[in-house]
Amino acid sequence: MEFMDGKWKKSSTDWEQLLSDSLLNQEAVVEGAVHSIRNMGDVAFIILRKREGLFQTVLERDIPECSVHQLKEAMTVRVRGILKNEARAPHGRELRITDVEILSAPAEPLPLAVDKWKLNTSLEAKLNKRPIALRNIRERSKFRIQEALVRAFRDYLYENGFTEIHTPKLGARGAEGGANVFKLSYFHKPAVLAQSPQFYKQMMVGVFDRVFETGPVFRAEKHNTKRHLNEYTSLDLEMGYIDSVQEIMSMETGYLQYAMALLKNNYEKELSLLNIELPNTERIPEVRFEKAKELVSEKYNRPVRNPYDLEPEEEALIGRYFKEEYGSDFVFVTHYPSKKRPFYAMDDPADPRFTLSFDLLFRGLEVTTGGQRIHDYRQLIAKISDRGMEKEGMEQYLDAFKHGMPPHGGLGIGLERLTMQLLGEENVREVCLFPRDMNRLEP
Amino acid sequence: MEFMDGKWKKSSTDWEQLLSDSLLNQEAVVEGAVHSIRNMGDVAFIILRKREGLFQTVLERDIPECSVHQLKEAMTVRVRGILKNEARAPHGRELRITDVEILSAPAEPLPLAVDKWKLNTSLEAKLNKRPIALRNIRERSKFRIQEALVRAFRDYLYENGFTEIHTPKLGARGAEGGANVFKLSYFHKPAVLAQSPQFYKQMMVGVFDRVFETGPVFRAEKHNTKRHLNEYTSLDLEMGYIDSVQEIMSMETGYLQYAMALLKNNYEKELSLLNIELPNTERIPEVRFEKAKELVSEKYNRPVRNPYDLEPEEEALIGRYFKEEYGSDFVFVTHYPSKKRPFYAMDDPADPRFTLSFDLLFRGLEVTTGGQRIHDYRQLIAKISDRGMEKEGMEQYLDAFKHGMPPHGGLGIGLERLTMQLLGEENVREVCLFPRDMNRLEP
Repeated sequence: MEFMDGKWKKSSTDWEQLLSDSLLNQEAVVEGAVHSIRNMGDVAFIILRKREGLFQTVLERDIPECSVHQLKEAMTVRVRGILKNEARAPHGRELRITDVEILSAPAEPLPLAVDKWKLNTSLEAKLNKRPIALRNIRERSKFRIQEALVRAFRDYLYENGFTEIHTPKLGARGAEGGANVFKLSYFHKPAVLAQSPQFYKQMMVGVFDRVFETGPVFRAEKHNTKRHLNEYTSLDLEMGYIDSVQEIMSMETGYLQYAMALLKNNYEKELSLLNIELPNTERIPEVRFEKAKELVSEKYNRPVRNPYDLEPEEEALIGRYFKEEYGSDFVFVTHYPSKKRPFYAMDDPADPRFTLSFDLLFRGLEVTTGGQRIHDYRQLIAKISDRGMEKEGMEQYLDAFKHGMPPHGGLGIGLERLTMQLLGEENVREVCLFPRDMNRLEP
Repeated sequence: MEFMDGKWKKSSTDWEQLLSDSLLNQEAVVEGAVHSIRNMGDVAFIILRKREGLFQTVLERDIPECSVHQLKEAMTVRVRGILKNEARAPHGRELRITDVEILSAPAEPLPLAVDKWKLNTSLEAKLNKRPIALRNIRERSKFRIQEALVRAFRDYLYENGFTEIHTPKLGARGAEGGANVFKLSYFHKPAVLAQSPQFYKQMMVGVFDRVFETGPVFRAEKHNTKRHLNEYTSLDLEMGYIDSVQEIMSMETGYLQYAMALLKNNYEKELSLLNIELPNTERIPEVRFEKAKELVSEKYNRPVRNPYDLEPEEEALIGRYFKEEYGSDFVFVTHYPSKKRPFYAMDDPADPRFTLSFDLLFRGLEVTTGGQRIHDYRQLIAKISDRGMEKEGMEQYLDAFKHGMPPHGGLGIGLERLTMQLLGEENVREVCLFPRDMNRLEP
């Protein structure tokens, strides 16, 4: 009988060893995709793309097993050779090839020059050829940065006593109601795709006190803008026994600090490839919704058109204001008007026209919406009734409150928006592996 | 201007402090839900439920602010008092109450006795009242164990150079084709929900070499069994430059070892509440599909009915065989017949009637399907054509191969099944927060 013991001895040399001194001037084996070939006549540089980065290999003359003319970009190969110091190579190392094994060969030449520093092509073309375009070193780095943002979210929340939950994306009714849900037939019953895990995460506060989820949400919104996706990844948390809404904002600030530290310590390569300077998250200013409107209206000579909502241009100006006045890339805008927040938002007892809620703007774009929720059953029922809403389909949600819920609140972060702002991208589609918008359902 | 700095000083005492000696015989503040009340006449024990566990508080006599008759189960409270050693209390500690603040009160008594050690009710009733039923200490512990399984998956794969990806759940076509997909209208275009991230994770191997995803998958299967869900969480990985299919099995073995260690070190409380003995994962036997059939047929006197597939009963017997013969709760069954595996499975060059694939059985239930995939474009096209399949809708997937893909393979683990087997549950719905089956779309 054969057994697996979880220990696998790779037949190739690992990245750390390639860069360490232990194998210098000795034999090593490197696997990778042929990223580019520079044939100088007497010598050819074969640059391999590995998950850790590019690695230079050198074919000094034709060898019996392989002529440079046999090699093609996008082949995957296993090369054997002698590891040498070479100051001009990436990472100061190269492999002088003694043997090449071709693992796979492409059937057609690449449709995009993925070995260029910047992919010189339109967003549309990149998205149409996504699996190829992402082979560009800078393109793929964006998603390593995105990984760090999700990873930090989870790790920070684990440390803070949160439990991770997985809530259903298929349900009988949307959390916020309304028209922006995708509908489908579920074994002949009407069903919808979850717009957010809102109801579920609240109900789970009654169980675990603190919960989070990182998962897809679906919005059938007919927006076709640079900052909207119809499917995106939402980083959601909900926490009970809060002292105030500010405790939620504090938790988000702590997360951002943790994320920047993780990026700085573990994603240095990608930050450097993309030339990213991390924003300061030590102190994030908070300003009331009304005050923010007033400040930018005064400073930038802009009349307030809609007193109940922030227009995208206004958000951008608030971002600019806090950058100019306080040097901050982030600002919490608090106390949004009650009529623009969902029924479950808690009104401010000091002035019920406003809610104990907030948005976080990052460089002038909303990346988070959060707030304290109503936890008292009677108050929740009264609010639903005030708004002329139906309780149908919310029975289970309301039951959780009927049987006691602690004071609580939470937030949802749009992962792609957060990534977009961090990377200074113009379009949210740049930082979604396979974006879904009104016109795009493929690849 | 006010600033958030990410440091929040809670007004209540944290769990570690409650159990440490630093506040012994001093004042502390405990928040929680009233889990149970034992009124002994001259003294009442108010057991609070916190995320970390149960904590005993004691009302020795009525105080001006609070009589025991005012307190109800499912209230949430903040109590102040003096912290005392008490050997008979959980964790050996209790709080002698001096003050009670009621944070919220239920509108109706609880419909289930959540304070009982075991919820004495049917699965159906538990699922109908899920947000309440999960307040039972043992019920909620199952999902902490589940958390550890996902967390370990990610952490182990981060350590092994995998990149986390988020692939779309809405698409134009299912990965495996077939009838088992949920269909919907996406802005007047036909769309389906992803049955698995299979195509996407394979395409991303061409970009990141090693990728993983933990997310929901949707199966419109008309199975109503104890081990099927129509929406579940899939732990998927895909890795390039593999030496053989066994390298994938080795990665899974490593993951399981890592998960058991994480459970042992960080989830002791939950293991003990549920009385779970962790399985040995040091050595996992592997056996060929045909051999496994033969072994159980001989040992248990059972004729082989279907030579191409394993019936559930046969899986159970294989599990039993390897437990009896090798003391193992796990067994890799390898080399499944080609005709029962998807088109992208790589046939064994030594005998193309079989594939370089595997299932992992855990206590007689399949919890993982994996294998090496075809990476050569021409071979993939030939297989599609042999099967009489349409290439329509797979253009992007095939493009990735046309432009070069490394040898690769991967696997998908059903999170709920893995949890179910670890916990010894009879029904997979027990370990899904909000299960979706043919008859259940709520809560």
